[in-house]
Amino acid sequence: MMKKNVLLIGGSGFLGRNIVEALKTEYNVIVFDRREPPDSQNVSSFRGDFTNKDNLERVFRKSTIDLVIHSVSTTIPSNTDTIFDIHSNVIGTVQLLELMKKYSVPKIVFISSGGTVYGVIEETESADELHSTFPICSHGISKLAIEKYIYLYHHLYNIDYLILRLSNPFGEHHISDKHGFINVALKKILRHEAIEVWGNGEVIRDYVYVKDCASIIKELLQKNISNEIYNVGSGTGLSINQILSLLEKNYGKLNVRWQEKRNFDVPRIVLNIAKLQSIVQHDFTPIGQAIRNTYDWLKDQP
Amino acid sequence: MMKKNVLLIGGSGFLGRNIVEALKTEYNVIVFDRREPPDSQNVSSFRGDFTNKDNLERVFRKSTIDLVIHSVSTTIPSNTDTIFDIHSNVIGTVQLLELMKKYSVPKIVFISSGGTVYGVIEETESADELHSTFPICSHGISKLAIEKYIYLYHHLYNIDYLILRLSNPFGEHHISDKHGFINVALKKILRHEAIEVWGNGEVIRDYVYVKDCASIIKELLQKNISNEIYNVGSGTGLSINQILSLLEKNYGKLNVRWQEKRNFDVPRIVLNIAKLQSIVQHDFTPIGQAIRNTYDWLKDQP
Repeated sequence: MMKKNVLLIGGSGFLGRNIVEALKTEYNVIVFDRREPPDSQNVSSFRGDFTNKDNLERVFRKSTIDLVIHSVSTTIPSNTDTIFDIHSNVIGTVQLLELMKKYSVPKIVFISSGGTVYGVIEETESADELHSTFPICSHGISKLAIEKYIYLYHHLYNIDYLILRLSNPFGEHHISDKHGFINVALKKILRHEAIEVWGNGEVIRDYVYVKDCASIIKELLQKNISNEIYNVGSGTGLSINQILSLLEKNYGKLNVRWQEKRNFDVPRIVLNIAKLQSIVQHDFTPIGQAIRNTYDWLKDQP
Repeated sequence: MMKKNVLLIGGSGFLGRNIVEALKTEYNVIVFDRREPPDSQNVSSFRGDFTNKDNLERVFRKSTIDLVIHSVSTTIPSNTDTIFDIHSNVIGTVQLLELMKKYSVPKIVFISSGGTVYGVIEETESADELHSTFPICSHGISKLAIEKYIYLYHHLYNIDYLILRLSNPFGEHHISDKHGFINVALKKILRHEAIEVWGNGEVIRDYVYVKDCASIIKELLQKNISNEIYNVGSGTGLSINQILSLLEKNYGKLNVRWQEKRNFDVPRIVLNIAKLQSIVQHDFTPIGQAIRNTYDWLKDQP
C-alpha cells in the first residue's frame, strides 16, 4: 500500500519534531514550517509562514495531501497581544480550512491546548472533554475558537477532524527558552543558572512526556479515529514544587528565583484521560525516566 | 440620583432601538452606530464604525460611561465570509474591551445569540446555558468567541459582564429585508409578495417578541445582575409552518415560495429559560398579539 501523505504544519517545532520521529517510517511526512527541520530527521519540507495563504497553498498545489496535522501556534499562553493571536492563529487556521476544502483534503488533526481551554477547574476535579471552557488567557480562547471552526468545516464540508487537547508536554526537541517549565528548568540546571518560578510553586500541571504524546497520536491515526475530541495528558497533577524536588533528587541543590504570580496561569489543571484510555492502551513513561531522557538529550545539544 | 450613562453600541439597529425605548426614561442612553437613530427617539448619539478604534474612542473621551451594551453584529447567520466575521465582530469587540479597560468602564452587557451558539440540539431538548456549544455557522462561533473574551477581561481586569443569549426576536423597529422570518414575512404580506421559506417549513425556532426582550434587559439591569450568562427567549418552539398558519389566520391566503434548505440553519432551536425565570418574572406577550402589533407598526412605516 502507498504511504499516506501527511502534511505536518509546525513540523519543526517541539511537538512537531516528535511527531515526525513517530510517523516517518509509516507515513510520508511533509513538514511545513518557517524553520527547516533538523537534517537528522531527513524529511521533505516546505518553508513558509503559516499565516500567509499563498505560502501554504504552494504545498497543496504540489502534493496530494491525505491528512493535515496542525501543530502550529504563533503564540504562547499570555495576554500580551490578543489581537495578534486572533489574526495569526485563528484567521490562519480558517485560511487553512479553506485550502483543505478547495483541495479536497479529507481530514485534519488539530493540536489544541488542554492546559488552557478549560480555564480554572475545581480543586479536586480533573477536566474531561465535556468540562466547561472559560480560558483565562487569549491563547486558550484562540485554540477553542479554532476547534469550533474545525467542527464547522466538518459540518458544512465533511472534512473529518480529530482534536487533541494536550496538557503540558516536555521532553526531547524542546526549543523555547521561556515556555515549558520542566524543559526550561533542565536547561537552567545545565547552564548553572537560576530557575524562575512564578508564584509559590503550588501551581499544578499535568506534565506529559512528549514521546508518549507522539506515540498516542500515531496510535489514534492508525485506528483512524475521527470526529472526536480527546484529552491527551498523563492524567496526573504535579506541583512545581514536586517537580523541583524530583529535579533536586537527580541533579543536586537547585538555585530557584521566586517571582510574582501571573494572572494568566490557572492554579491547577489535570486532564481526565478516561476517554483516551478507552481506545488507546498506552504505558506512560515514568516521569523520573522521562526527565532523565530529556536531560541526557539536552546535554548532547550544541 | 444622577442617571447612569449607558453607551448602546448598535443602538440604531433592530434590537438597539427597542432597548432605547425601554431604557431612555431611566438611563441616559448614548447611541453609537453607523446610522442615526430615528428623530422620534430623541437620544444622544455618535455616528461611527464599530470596527474603527478611533471612532469608538471618541465616545469614551467625551463621556464617562457607566455601562456598555454591545448590541452590534456586522454579520447575520451564514458562512459567506468567515474571515470578515472574525475581523469585524471579534477583533472589534476586543478593541472595545481594551477601551473599557483604558477608561475604567465597570460593566458590559453583551447581546449574544442563543439561536446559533448551541448548534444542533436533540429533538426533544431545550438548550440551557450549560448545553454544549458547537455552532454550525461562523456568526455563532464569533458570538461564542466574544463571550470568552468578555469572560477573560472580567477575570483579568474585573470588568463585570452580563451575557444574554437571545433566541429569534421579532417586532417593531425591524430593519432587514432578509433576516428575521416573522418580520420579513409580514413585510411581504404588506407588499403582496411571495414569502420565501428554506426547507420544508419544519425548522423550529424560539420566536420572542422584541419588546419582551427589551423589558427583560431593563429588569436585569435594574436588578444589577452581573457575571452570568442567560438565555433570553420565549422557551417555546414553533415551526415555520405554524407561523405560516398563524399569519394566514390573520391576513388570509399566503403566497409561499419554497426554497432549498440551507446547511447553516439548525433544524431546531428552543431555549431553556428556567435560569432567567428564576430571577425575572415576565409576562410574555402572546405571539398572536405580538405579530399583530408588529403588522400594525409596519403598516404605518413610510
